[in-house]
Amino acid sequence: MTNDSARALLRGPLDVLHAGIDEVIRGAEATGVPVERLDFAPPCGGDPARIRMLRRLTGGALGAAIDRANAEALERLLASRPHLVGVGVARDVVPGMRDGLFLHAGPPVDWDRMSGPLRGAVIGGLLLEGLAGTPEQAETLAAAGAVRFEPCHHHDAVGPMAGLITPSMPVWIVEDRADGPRRGARTFCTLNEGLGKVLRYGAYAPEVLERLRWMAAELAPALGEALAARGPIDLKLLLAQALQMGDEGHNRNRAGTSLLFRQLAPALVRLPREREAIAKVLSFIDANDHFFLNLTMPAAKCMLQAAEGVPLASLVTVMARNGTDFGLQVAALPGRWFTGPAQRVRGLYFPGFGEADANPDIGDSAITETAGFGGFAMSAAPAIVQFVGGSAEEALATTRRMRRITTGANPAWAVPALDFAGTPTGIDVRRVEELNLLPVINTGIAHKDPGVGQVGAGLVSPPWTCFHQALEALHAHARERFPQP
Amino acid sequence: MTNDSARALLRGPLDVLHAGIDEVIRGAEATGVPVERLDFAPPCGGDPARIRMLRRLTGGALGAAIDRANAEALERLLASRPHLVGVGVARDVVPGMRDGLFLHAGPPVDWDRMSGPLRGAVIGGLLLEGLAGTPEQAETLAAAGAVRFEPCHHHDAVGPMAGLITPSMPVWIVEDRADGPRRGARTFCTLNEGLGKVLRYGAYAPEVLERLRWMAAELAPALGEALAARGPIDLKLLLAQALQMGDEGHNRNRAGTSLLFRQLAPALVRLPREREAIAKVLSFIDANDHFFLNLTMPAAKCMLQAAEGVPLASLVTVMARNGTDFGLQVAALPGRWFTGPAQRVRGLYFPGFGEADANPDIGDSAITETAGFGGFAMSAAPAIVQFVGGSAEEALATTRRMRRITTGANPAWAVPALDFAGTPTGIDVRRVEELNLLPVINTGIAHKDPGVGQVGAGLVSPPWTCFHQALEALHAHARERFPQP
Repeated sequence: MTNDSARALLRGPLDVLHAGIDEVIRGAEATGVPVERLDFAPPCGGDPARIRMLRRLTGGALGAAIDRANAEALERLLASRPHLVGVGVARDVVPGMRDGLFLHAGPPVDWDRMSGPLRGAVIGGLLLEGLAGTPEQAETLAAAGAVRFEPCHHHDAVGPMAGLITPSMPVWIVEDRADGPRRGARTFCTLNEGLGKVLRYGAYAPEVLERLRWMAAELAPALGEALAARGPIDLKLLLAQALQMGDEGHNRNRAGTSLLFRQLAPALVRLPREREAIAKVLSFIDANDHFFLNLTMPAAKCMLQAAEGVPLASLVTVMARNGTDFGLQVAALPGRWFTGPAQRVRGLYFPGFGEADANPDIGDSAITETAGFGGFAMSAAPAIVQFVGGSAEEALATTRRMRRITTGANPAWAVPALDFAGTPTGIDVRRVEELNLLPVINTGIAHKDPGVGQVGAGLVSPPWTCFHQALEALHAHARERFPQP
Repeated sequence: MTNDSARALLRGPLDVLHAGIDEVIRGAEATGVPVERLDFAPPCGGDPARIRMLRRLTGGALGAAIDRANAEALERLLASRPHLVGVGVARDVVPGMRDGLFLHAGPPVDWDRMSGPLRGAVIGGLLLEGLAGTPEQAETLAAAGAVRFEPCHHHDAVGPMAGLITPSMPVWIVEDRADGPRRGARTFCTLNEGLGKVLRYGAYAPEVLERLRWMAAELAPALGEALAARGPIDLKLLLAQALQMGDEGHNRNRAGTSLLFRQLAPALVRLPREREAIAKVLSFIDANDHFFLNLTMPAAKCMLQAAEGVPLASLVTVMARNGTDFGLQVAALPGRWFTGPAQRVRGLYFPGFGEADANPDIGDSAITETAGFGGFAMSAAPAIVQFVGGSAEEALATTRRMRRITTGANPAWAVPALDFAGTPTGIDVRRVEELNLLPVINTGIAHKDPGVGQVGAGLVSPPWTCFHQALEALHAHARERFPQP
């Protein structure tokens, strides 16, 4: 039984409520007395101080004020209209990007605490930028502090898995086209490299670097010119269609990739470029059903940035992992990280790999769940649940469960299997704590060693400590703004 | 209550079973006696002779022999591997096609009994072939028997709506790649013209003919060359993917069109043709989410032809409409039509149109339901049920209901929302009669006047008389082959 049924029972007739030692219950059962067993977990991890904080943050005038703040944050998020407007070089377009700076997924982390796949990506980045001649040299340089590391999220950017962005890399440019103060705000993401040995999973073999060079020299300029010719693409609309076509926008992007391909191909063909070069671009996209992921992510980031900075709002605006730590941010306290250890992913492994090979959870891609799709739209993509041995019914149940920890739903993203209910959107830190219910994230699993790549896929949740810290910080923030008891 | 629950009740305790006059029941209810009202309909339309025939065809050794025959027919259908192998001109590739012959959807029909949209298409065909200079001239010629009319189905072909195929039209060539005697068998369909004013809905304005001329001169050769360069496309596999992406393969083909587009684009770009010509081909496909329909139809025809000619088999192999008549064929009696009046479509109309504008049911596209998708895979495409004011739950219910009248399911076409159960496949005439349950067909609605076009979309079923005739013919056929009582 869940906390809900426990509450229902507590309102009904009751002889004895016993919590704790199992032998007592078994003894009662032996006498034939009717016994209801509850799978009850106290809110806030049972910590009395946090329970008091939660009570303050949910009840009375302060609770109502936070509800209003969350409603405003959600409204801003839903009003955002992320459009794909172009492709640029990170050094030229990402704010604050400069030579000697490498961006990475998740909260801040130094070389000495970096996990294998992120180290692998950094080695690849140093080779790609021509800063190192060999992987060994790259390791030495990285350890010596030759480059500075900062989170993508500090630069309006996101990246899947290792999420490495180096100055010479091409990036998608996503722009908010909503009327209002956020109009023109931009977010960024690299272009998806495809499957197999790729930098984002920590691979840095010569073929990986060669592909990245081709992407910078051929793919990105062609896509940029095609976009300039055809005009911006409405990503919120494209994602709405994809969610009706079996995608959840995180681990399944076949429909989104197909629809994007259709929108770009005619313009690509008209470019004044070698025919074979265009064919190679089209074949590259066609070969990778994850191509659209690197657009759902900056679209999600664009929408969530719109919700940042609403005083009192307990909405989660960032969930991100660097392979070592999981980091969380909330709308009321933009830029402030609440971190804890990155968790193990529960999932299925490719043949020849197992749990011992897996790196802990990594990547900025949890921005999709934060924005109300990915694992939160599982019911839109029942094919995904086969990955984790689940059923279509479980996919529906996951989406319904996530709806309990969100402030609202996104009416633009209707899920057919839920009779076109919108996807659960706007995780409320208070609800997570009160219901003891963590967000569900769909994710890939990286090998723990640099240079290997993906070894599986599955489900993961943030560590509790992130939410506990966020609750405490929100409480302190609310005390400043709302001093009355 | 349904027939099923009626049967369950008849096995339970029962005081009185009363069928007929409502006053008697109301009288009984007034006394306080428990009354169960049944929505019971007798099998075979209540005709005692047909009920006896059905009993013979379902029970005993004959029933078992028909079950075996149907299992074989279904096995052949499921073993078929339709591949798109090329594009040709009807005159050159469709068996029996010749100058002066026009093929049309549905069972045979003469000019004087043709409905408006089919007449409109014939007028357009005469103009397109240069046999008439004006629509009036075309009507006079058609009425005078200047061209001969035969069903597409008599020439291994299918066509949506009017389904007109004239000798100069380009057609897709679909080929069975399964090992066995059917290997190399071919079916055919025209290329989809797009939306709005189009020949298949009976429009013949200059823009319609101009588009058809461009399709013959530019589109078809380009697609044919691209296919020759890249090799055949497995349509059964493509449809399997599309059914996991919100298509049902009849009224919704967005995913199939997108996936086909991805497969063709790289080869199209490499053709030694003007760049602008290729861009126009890509834009034409991209602008029409129904483009793939004209491939799901010949794929369905290919699979169903494989099931034809199995003695005793009561599986339906053709359902087709010409706008005046609905026609049915069964596996044991290939080529023999069982016809009845084409029905009104229950559906939603485009703004400005209503039931008074609608032509009765028309087109060969019901071949999709016959092969186990379209309306039978409604649960794969819940977006479709919005068309008819339904819910996702109703879509699931439709697929489950159709499973009751089919011999089996197609494991290659798994529906996520049904926990990856295959789509119901192989309509059994006996089950339709016994359960009083007609097949559900998703369809477009054509305006009743020539030259107007589509006015809506909805659901339709065959007229009962087709199944009654088929049952009687199967009974006569079984008597010849299986004379024992």
